[in-house]
Parts: sequence; C-alpha cells; structure tokens
Amino acid sequence: MSAANINIPDAPQPRVVIVGGGFAGLNLADKMSKMNYQVVLIDKNNFHQFQPLFYQVAMAGLEPSSILFPLRKLFQKRKNVFIRVTTVTKVNTAQKRVHTLLGELEYDFLVLAIGADTNFFGNEQIARKAFPMKTVGEALTLRNKILYDYERAITTVDYEERQGLIDIVIVGGGPTGVEVAGALAEMKKYILPKDYTELNCEEIDIYLVQGGNCLLKGMSAEASQKAEDFLKKLGVIIKLNARVEDFDGKFVYIKGGEKIQSNKVIWAAGIKGNTVEGLPEESIVWGGRIKVDRDNKVVGVADVYAIGDIAYMEEPDFPKGHPQVAQVAIQQAKNLAKNFNRTAKGKPTKPFVYNNLGAMATIGRNRAVVDLPRFKFQGFFAWIVWLFVHLFSLIGMKNRLFVFINWVWNYFTYDQSLRLIIRPKNRHQKEKIPKEI
Amino acid sequence: MSAANINIPDAPQPRVVIVGGGFAGLNLADKMSKMNYQVVLIDKNNFHQFQPLFYQVAMAGLEPSSILFPLRKLFQKRKNVFIRVTTVTKVNTAQKRVHTLLGELEYDFLVLAIGADTNFFGNEQIARKAFPMKTVGEALTLRNKILYDYERAITTVDYEERQGLIDIVIVGGGPTGVEVAGALAEMKKYILPKDYTELNCEEIDIYLVQGGNCLLKGMSAEASQKAEDFLKKLGVIIKLNARVEDFDGKFVYIKGGEKIQSNKVIWAAGIKGNTVEGLPEESIVWGGRIKVDRDNKVVGVADVYAIGDIAYMEEPDFPKGHPQVAQVAIQQAKNLAKNFNRTAKGKPTKPFVYNNLGAMATIGRNRAVVDLPRFKFQGFFAWIVWLFVHLFSLIGMKNRLFVFINWVWNYFTYDQSLRLIIRPKNRHQKEKIPKEI
Repeated sequence: MSAANINIPDAPQPRVVIVGGGFAGLNLADKMSKMNYQVVLIDKNNFHQFQPLFYQVAMAGLEPSSILFPLRKLFQKRKNVFIRVTTVTKVNTAQKRVHTLLGELEYDFLVLAIGADTNFFGNEQIARKAFPMKTVGEALTLRNKILYDYERAITTVDYEERQGLIDIVIVGGGPTGVEVAGALAEMKKYILPKDYTELNCEEIDIYLVQGGNCLLKGMSAEASQKAEDFLKKLGVIIKLNARVEDFDGKFVYIKGGEKIQSNKVIWAAGIKGNTVEGLPEESIVWGGRIKVDRDNKVVGVADVYAIGDIAYMEEPDFPKGHPQVAQVAIQQAKNLAKNFNRTAKGKPTKPFVYNNLGAMATIGRNRAVVDLPRFKFQGFFAWIVWLFVHLFSLIGMKNRLFVFINWVWNYFTYDQSLRLIIRPKNRHQKEKIPKEI
Repeated sequence: MSAANINIPDAPQPRVVIVGGGFAGLNLADKMSKMNYQVVLIDKNNFHQFQPLFYQVAMAGLEPSSILFPLRKLFQKRKNVFIRVTTVTKVNTAQKRVHTLLGELEYDFLVLAIGADTNFFGNEQIARKAFPMKTVGEALTLRNKILYDYERAITTVDYEERQGLIDIVIVGGGPTGVEVAGALAEMKKYILPKDYTELNCEEIDIYLVQGGNCLLKGMSAEASQKAEDFLKKLGVIIKLNARVEDFDGKFVYIKGGEKIQSNKVIWAAGIKGNTVEGLPEESIVWGGRIKVDRDNKVVGVADVYAIGDIAYMEEPDFPKGHPQVAQVAIQQAKNLAKNFNRTAKGKPTKPFVYNNLGAMATIGRNRAVVDLPRFKFQGFFAWIVWLFVHLFSLIGMKNRLFVFINWVWNYFTYDQSLRLIIRPKNRHQKEKIPKEI
C-alpha cells in the first residue's frame, strides 16, 4: 500500500484545523463552516458522540446508534468542510503543521478540542482491570461484560465466586457515577429478576464509592443530599470518604483496610486531558489541561486555540478553571467563532464569560436533581426537565425520536429488549464464548 | 476460577435439549415450553438473529438491535425453560449427553437446530480474505469495512489503489447476493455522493458474480429475469456463468482468466451445515447436513432430531432435500412439537410435509420479485409484500416499530444516519485507526 496522504486541497480561504468532533469541535466546525474558512475536522471516529447518555448504552437502555451521529452527514452541504478520520500524533507550532496517521497538514489556525479521557491517577492495575466509560466503544464493552457476567453467574455454583460476578462497584460520585448507580439499581429491581429467574437477585449488591464527603460535588447541598436519599431508597450501598487504593480483579481495596468483593469496577472517578505532542511544556497544567487565555488562545504559541474539556481558563468566577461539561464546550466554541469574525472585521475579540445554565443528574425513574442559577428542585419535575434537556440536545431528528420511543417504552414496560451481547466478529475468531470479555 | 457447571436442575418432566436459537430452535422451544417438558435452549449468543435482514445491517440501513431479540426476554414467563449461552462441543448419543464449554448435560431428547455457516468450498485464501454475512457480528464487520474503505479512498491519491477500495464484488446470485447488490447500488446512487463529495462516485463499480446461468436459482424464470433487469438498471455489473476461483485481497480471479480488481469481496456463494462431533458418520451428508427421516429423527441414533437448515430430509416433492430457508425451519419445528405431543398421547407421528409458501427477494426501493405458489409478480406491489412479510416476521413489537420507522425514514429522506464505524473497545487497545479492519 502506498503512503496515505491527508489530501486536503489548497483553498483561497484561511484553513482552520479542528481536532476533535465532540461538543466543542462540532459546534465550532458548524459556525466556522458558515464563515469564510476552509474547515478541516479531524476525529478518530466518523461520528459525534453524545457523552451524557453513554451510561444508558452501557445499561442496555439505548442503542449506540441513537446517541451517535455521522460527521459526514452533518456537513453534507458544506463544501468548505473536510472531514478526516484519523489520529493527530503531533503538532508543530513553529511550522504550523499537524501530523496525523494519514500524513501532515499545514494550518492557518489550529483548534484543539481533544477532550478528556478517564483518569486512573497512575494506578496501572486499576487501568487494566476497571471499566471506564468515556467512549461509546467502552460503554458497549461494559454492557457486554455486565450481561456476560450474569450469564456466567447462573452456571457458577460457588457462592463467593457468584457474588464476584453479580456485585458491581462504581467508583466516583459525580453525575456519571450517580446515574450509573441509579440505572443499575433499577435493572436489579425491574429487569434482572425477570431475565434471570435462576438467580437470587436480592443478592446483587451495587456499591457507589466516593472519595469525598458528598455525592455530586459541585452541585448544591440539596442536590447532593437528595441524590443520596434517592440512591439509598433504590438499595445502592453508598460509601463516602472512601478512597479506592487498588483493584485486583477480585477485590476493591479501600484506604483504611476495607475491601469489597467484586470482579467488576466501573471507573468514573476522574478525567484527564488527552495529550498531543508538540505544545510548550508550560501550557500543560493540572489534570492534563491546556492553559488558554480568555480568548481560548493557548498560552505561549501563535494561532493555536483549545476549547472544551481540554481547555484550562481562569475566569474571575472560576479561578480554578471551568467545570468540564458540555455547556462550557459549546459556549467556548461559539465565542471563539465570534472572535474569528470580530478579528476578520478588525474588531477586538471578546473574552469568554461562562454563562452557567445549571447542572442536573438523574437517579432513575421519576427522580432527578436540578440546580438552576436561581432555582433548585428535585424529584419528578426535575426528572421531566432532565429528559427534555437531554432529548433536545441530541443531534438528529431520528435519534431524538428513537431515544424518545425507547424511554417511553421503557417507562411503561419496565423492560428493554436491548440486552444483547453483540460483538463485531473478527474474521478468524473462533465462535466460542471467551473466558473474559 | 472453579470449573463451570451447566447447572440445570433435575425435573420430573422429560428434558429436551435444543441446540440453536434460530428460526427452527426458537419455534420449537416456544411450542415445547407450553408442553410438559423441561426445555434447555443452548445458543452461542444471548439473542435470536433475524437472518433475512443481516444485509440491511451490513449496508447501514438498520441497527443490529432492531433485528435481534434477547432469548431470555422471550422466555421470561416460562419457568420450564433454561437458557444457556455456550457452545456445544460434542454429542454422546450412547450416554445421551451433550458436552458444552460449560460442562455436560444429560438429555431425554436432543434437537439439533445448529443451522449453517458460510461455505468457502475449501478455499482457505478466500475464507481468510472475503467477507461472509452469516451472523450479525459479520454483518457489522462488513459495515465497518465498507465505511472504513470509503474513508481511506478519500486520502488515497493513487487511482488503481483507490479503485480497489471503492469497488465491491459480491459472489453468489441467490437472494442474499441480489439484495446486497441492490442495496449497494442504491447507496452508490443516493448516499455516497452526499457523504463523500470528494470522491467521484461514478467510479464505484459493483459486481455481482454468479457461477450459474441465472440469478435467484430456485425461483421462477420471471423472477430471475426481473431481478437481473432491476439490478442492471441500478448499474450493477452482473457476471453469469462466472466461477470465482480465488481472491488474494486485491483481485478476484474468475475461471477462464478474467480478473476483477477489488480489495473487498462479499461472499454469499453457499452455505454448509455447522458441525457437531459425535454423530454417526453416515448421518452427515452433502453440504454438511444431517440426514433425517420424515419425522426429523436423525438416521441411526435414538432420540436425536435435526431441524432447519442443518436437516437433510428427502420428501417426494423435494428428492434432494428442502431449500435452506426460514419457512422450512419453522414448519419442521412445529411438526416436531406436534409429533412429541402425538407420541405422548400414544398416537403415531405425522411425517413432515413442506408447505411451500413461496419465495421473494427485494432489489432496492420499489422493486422486488415474489413467487407465490399460484401467482408470480414483480415490481412495486411485490416490494410492498416483501416489506410487510419481513416486518411481521420480526420478533418484538419494538423491533417492528423501529424497523418500520427506519424504512419510512429511509424511503422519504433517501438517507440514513447509521453510517457509524462502531467497535466495542478492548480495554488496552490503542485508539488508533487500524491499518485494516
């Protein structure tokens, strides 16, 4: 095979290369594609992923396709947009080039919207054994693993061993951990006893382990407390002030000596910025984030920007950087696009100001917590708000329709038909059930 | 880990072990579960697969979950049904035991509904390089490969090499080959030019290569001819009387010296029975099928039956065995269940008689061919019939609804949003695009 070539044609307009098709990159590409630029959007996948609903894919509540959207379909009518499915390996800020697995590319402006990945805080063993949930592929792997372990539990006669298969430990009490715990608890209550009549589903223990002293840190005290109450009502065992020190595939070791038996740990305890070679050392700060000024310009290099989860910006109201959430990403993308416009017109740029619209998390059927800037509420109405905000944030009418039908179906039947252990087949793979997924 | 144990409780009723959850096994399990038997259903997957629509999954027209249904959900309310997700490795007919990867199990009656797999007719190289489509995993792998190759084509400057990526050769002119060819031709016409504006989609060649002298052998001459006409109108290059001798990953070699450049061959040229160790040699006949009498009893052993694609039965009207289609499987399952009932009541069994309801195939939008016993028709009305027959054969109301919405959506928009290269992620897999899928 001859060498690949990223094959972007020369154009009269300035070229902006956007790395990453998440909330930040996608929104920027959308705005810039309507302006006088050649836009090159690079992502490892050919689709945008709606991260807030990964956990429902992992819990067999939604198909992956409902929360993904093909990048090419989004930009079908924008002739100035070029999509490349590849990995950026390096940035050369002196020559203004990005290096990718498909070859090199010059840029006039480079925007890094490369997001964050799971942070195992340097523990190699946990990284190897625990299940993260930061890509749809990981969510699918977790779904397969959970279902596979329940299948195995049925044919496992030894009590201790069976407990290891059916119990689940979730590490991290943020929105992801809370939402996963709620979904698992409902699965235990409504679905598993019907599917696995041979198991005693009462024996299934779901642990939510949080290092700090409350759940949903960063939300209001009312939200934290209600989330805790809701989860406890669903039977989730919550361990606060419990720092996980290790996980060997059989036991979770908690600082102070306690250990929990489980062969399955869902790791939602932290994230760290994705890395790209070639940026000045001083621009990489705490959590692997890239330090930017109020215009999202990377400190110390010309014509390079960072937006979204990867960007670390100090605003007076956010002296330690913004929360790594979709709203910040979307707002930064929009402000950056506007700043490009302002600069082109010879006007000064406007520094980014985060407009905090609030935060929310759902804890299963009829239960959610919502913090709006002036108003906090919990329970059924919060849950309805959560549903609609997520539904309308999805990209694609058909995705919205399918997610909506799935939710309604689920609500009334208490039962999905998505509990499928599907794997694309390697062509030469023997069709035996693997020892471990 | 201690030894697995298939862990089926003893029961007062006779135990029937059904191997395979396809059309035959599933229908039999359904009937037998309403009778006085303990039913053990063994499958490698935890779901039933609707094979007739695999090709739409491979062509990114349907989600896999829409054509699959979890076995456990189907039998939630049947306490006498035990489902085991494992592989049967051997049958011991003398001791009346099946050996599985989870352990051994005694049976009173054994029913093999193990179906068929792709037949590469002994050509190892083709088996390694071509893409079969006999499981949903294989359909997904093919979908990923097709999309991946179009991505690569964009960044491939060399003309010859690019042709290899965009051209597709389908081998086999049966219903699967015809339906895939039609779907690919429509993708080329309606979707690819919108997604891949950088490619010249006119250059995409779709070949349908058939060893015999007509398409849809086994259907009427009118159906064969119309299918050929429809495909030609869609731009498919049909090669009849063309026997594929080899495929090296770059060229397809046809008997007589012709060769076609393509790195992608979809192999739908034949099937062979899946194998299970332990049956008498003389019971395995042509095509790897298991020889059965008119009661579907395997010749030469007691209390072992075979139904569906794997069964080879000579009926006066079908002296060379039945066609390997869903209707035969379903009807044999029903007849066998009734025969168990008759035997239990001391009545003689009734030999199986195949009631041929007809055959059909679709060739894209508005076009299908249908042969009913007394009536043959082609075109739009045939297509409507095809749609409804397939829709109502699906298991699960939600699956029917989702497939229906997908079809209607597709019909009016000419465009799906399912062109996603999704892979469950191995936990330690580097997130680079692989050289080859």
